[in-house]
Amino acid sequence: MKRIAIDMDEVIADANLRIIDWYERDFRRRITFEELQGKSFMDVVLPEHRAKIREYLHTDGFFKDMAVIEGSQEVVFELSKKYEIFITTAAMEFPTSFMHKYEWMKEHFPFIPWSHIVFCGDKSIINADYLIDDRSRHFRHFRGQGILFTSPHNVLEDWNPRVNSWKEVADLLL
Amino acid sequence: MKRIAIDMDEVIADANLRIIDWYERDFRRRITFEELQGKSFMDVVLPEHRAKIREYLHTDGFFKDMAVIEGSQEVVFELSKKYEIFITTAAMEFPTSFMHKYEWMKEHFPFIPWSHIVFCGDKSIINADYLIDDRSRHFRHFRGQGILFTSPHNVLEDWNPRVNSWKEVADLLL
Repeated sequence: MKRIAIDMDEVIADANLRIIDWYERDFRRRITFEELQGKSFMDVVLPEHRAKIREYLHTDGFFKDMAVIEGSQEVVFELSKKYEIFITTAAMEFPTSFMHKYEWMKEHFPFIPWSHIVFCGDKSIINADYLIDDRSRHFRHFRGQGILFTSPHNVLEDWNPRVNSWKEVADLLL
Repeated sequence: MKRIAIDMDEVIADANLRIIDWYERDFRRRITFEELQGKSFMDVVLPEHRAKIREYLHTDGFFKDMAVIEGSQEVVFELSKKYEIFITTAAMEFPTSFMHKYEWMKEHFPFIPWSHIVFCGDKSIINADYLIDDRSRHFRHFRGQGILFTSPHNVLEDWNPRVNSWKEVADLLL
């Protein structure tokens, strides 16, 4: 059985939406997905707001109750009948995220057992056939095939295969 | 550069000693390492105490301030000059351990960056050349070479290579 490793943030959990919401709460401006095309949050906010955004990621609660990316639950469930699924998230950079990420998985992906959740940093440690991720840097030393999941920040990157939605993941792998 | 994955509990962190100490605190009997040869804690305690021992592992604080296994810091440091080192621990079974394990690593192995710490369950997800672990079950689907680190519970197991101490790890790999 082939194995798929799947990232969390911006692939199954909507981290962008959380930043947009918190930024609006703090600075009264709603950043749009259109503005973010090919850019990071750091590029579109005022320089004096950047420290605050960096702080968000280390704030207890940032990773709590994130919205689920559309279609991910259904497609991952279907994939889990044909492939071995691991959720592999670079949580080590954000220790305040550990419990929230774990609880989030239990709530939204209860069919993924705890044995198949991985908190890591450098994803070259992952032994899988496919890695679905929004950060192509994780593919550089990955031993399998990287599949780039579209997120505003990576739209200008050249990577094949790229998937724009969970519907496209299903088309590619099911 | 070859890569070594190293388990935490009973390999670099003395989980056995923690159970022995807590068991003595609660039941006024000190279990010895001699009694544990070839056995698990469940085998040597009274049946009515087993639930309590299972509970220890899920108790906040169990993984905090564990003693460091003799020689591990020095040898892992030397290994880190010749190999890429990842610490790979099956933390997912014990969510209360996340922060304690992370802090423990920062305190006792500060030369291992957060990017090289992995909390997982099923270790077949680990992509490394060697895995030093006290549980041989993790070697079954591991793609590299498993190296069994002696712990009382595994002394009767037949596995080659086996190392009885960090001195022996140094002899084998340095």
